[in-house]
Amino acid sequence: MGKTIDFQLDETAKVAVFGGGSWATAIVKILLNNVEKIGWYVRDPEVVESLRTDGRNPKYLSAVKFDKTKLILSSDINEIAKNADIIVFAIPSAFLKDSLQDLTVNLEGKFIISAIKGIIPDDNQTVAEYFHEHHQIPFDFIGIVTGPCHAEEAAQERLSYLTIACKNRENAAAIAEKFNCSFINTITSTDIYGTEYSAVLKNIYAIAAGICHGVGYGDNFQAVLISNAQREIKRFLDQTYPSKRNIDSSAYLGDLLVTSYSHFSRNRNFGMMIGRGYSVKAAQLEMSMVAEGYYSTSCIKEINKKYNVKLPIVDAVYNILYEGIAPAIEIKLLTEKLK
Amino acid sequence: MGKTIDFQLDETAKVAVFGGGSWATAIVKILLNNVEKIGWYVRDPEVVESLRTDGRNPKYLSAVKFDKTKLILSSDINEIAKNADIIVFAIPSAFLKDSLQDLTVNLEGKFIISAIKGIIPDDNQTVAEYFHEHHQIPFDFIGIVTGPCHAEEAAQERLSYLTIACKNRENAAAIAEKFNCSFINTITSTDIYGTEYSAVLKNIYAIAAGICHGVGYGDNFQAVLISNAQREIKRFLDQTYPSKRNIDSSAYLGDLLVTSYSHFSRNRNFGMMIGRGYSVKAAQLEMSMVAEGYYSTSCIKEINKKYNVKLPIVDAVYNILYEGIAPAIEIKLLTEKLK
Repeated sequence: MGKTIDFQLDETAKVAVFGGGSWATAIVKILLNNVEKIGWYVRDPEVVESLRTDGRNPKYLSAVKFDKTKLILSSDINEIAKNADIIVFAIPSAFLKDSLQDLTVNLEGKFIISAIKGIIPDDNQTVAEYFHEHHQIPFDFIGIVTGPCHAEEAAQERLSYLTIACKNRENAAAIAEKFNCSFINTITSTDIYGTEYSAVLKNIYAIAAGICHGVGYGDNFQAVLISNAQREIKRFLDQTYPSKRNIDSSAYLGDLLVTSYSHFSRNRNFGMMIGRGYSVKAAQLEMSMVAEGYYSTSCIKEINKKYNVKLPIVDAVYNILYEGIAPAIEIKLLTEKLK
Repeated sequence: MGKTIDFQLDETAKVAVFGGGSWATAIVKILLNNVEKIGWYVRDPEVVESLRTDGRNPKYLSAVKFDKTKLILSSDINEIAKNADIIVFAIPSAFLKDSLQDLTVNLEGKFIISAIKGIIPDDNQTVAEYFHEHHQIPFDFIGIVTGPCHAEEAAQERLSYLTIACKNRENAAAIAEKFNCSFINTITSTDIYGTEYSAVLKNIYAIAAGICHGVGYGDNFQAVLISNAQREIKRFLDQTYPSKRNIDSSAYLGDLLVTSYSHFSRNRNFGMMIGRGYSVKAAQLEMSMVAEGYYSTSCIKEINKKYNVKLPIVDAVYNILYEGIAPAIEIKLLTEKLK
């Protein structure tokens, strides 16, 4: 069930957020409703400077104006890490290892929360698995924050629900209290593996949804695709981390839906460009944002070599993104496998 | 498991479609890929005349041009009923009883397929239950056709999947063969109760989705709403007709998704108007189409008095549509019940 770790999770715990993107920015905004001061590591010194002088992140969610007196800002990861009891990571998984290279502060005894929805490339591990293996963080000291929650809507204070998963439900509840506010409802879970893998997988399905839309399939087919995606997630989780989870909860199905259907979804938009004939490189340049699902696709494909779960949609996305198969051909083949 | 009824379901079976709306029109188009001649009962003599002379339904899906030589048309229900072995009903549930009043032909021995997604008002029965009780049709002689399938996309020959449910899977397969074509993939099921109730419930959730959108909730909340709706469907079916069904299949989850997310969804559009402040009457006048979910809401509310399943979303829609509670207030209360 996981151990309770109340010493650091009470109201005196010092909270830090790592990352300078839209999700990191939204999380800082959310947490400031409950936390007096937040440590915020942003790699880009110009962004730090702008936050310090203007109270805004000029690159993401620039409409959000922060109370500067509540922010402890630095582009030095160690500066922020050393004073934090709880660190929320919101750095795209593809850049996480790179950011952690500069870290000399020992993370032992700190509570690590992953708000990252991706797999660490090369290592093919989830963020929780990576911190556990490479930074010796016990799984009891790891939490997962998951949606359905696009940063843009949270920034606009439109009601959103977050699921906080920790192995121990009391820890999850303590973390959840820090996120709860007028526009955020929180749900707790103990399924750190399932919520994280589901958050990773849903990005791949959002790419698939985008591709199908781009190729010209309609809403009827989209619904079949997503209901098949939901069954793929269930098959994958049942095989890798069997548990009594309700796969139709917000953290699984809800997260899949918002990512696959919302126009805010960068993974869906990335897929749409691929479906319309952009190359992967051209789509990435055009978006100037990372579609996590691109990396997740090859990682999940690799991880699944061990489990051999039937994942026809993941396979199709892989074939299109990495094997150069024409989207129209690959999706046509996929339609015969779905039901 | 249900009896096999092969004598009428083979290729010599005479098929008729009852209804003049968009779904009836799409079904005739689909069936004509496999059936040489179709009996088609349309109540409005003007529509019959137009189909006879021009090969088009002037009111719905008028872009679809039929081969007139394949249609046996009449606005006399008995004329078409007497020569049919299989009758596909695609008349809105609110008007079904009215249409059946003129029927003097005995339906005994005919195979009845319901493509209706609604409850018979006053009787508070599904279409299958109604035919069973009032026309003595054995459940073995009843089939259900369900989506996810908006008529508009089927008319455009965009790939769609239909689920055909009969108590006996071989009957379902025989019916499915008649629907299968280049743009329709079919799935068979034996869950005639579950697929029909699910098709009814999903219209109520689509109204809820529309209301929330109309009131101003965003995509994040929408995803939470729909994942809660999916759990409501499961709770309702588990309580009323327990079975080993996979609720994440296309006929359940897929149908819920297309109805809740597609812009073609009249139930969603109806809800959106309600959320924006239209009265029920004004919204119905504006649409000049029946939103099945409006009637289903009060019927399911009534049916559920016997089962007492927790259906907070159905309750909220009922309170808005029938009790005059302001959408913004009712949805705010609902947000506290969802997770």
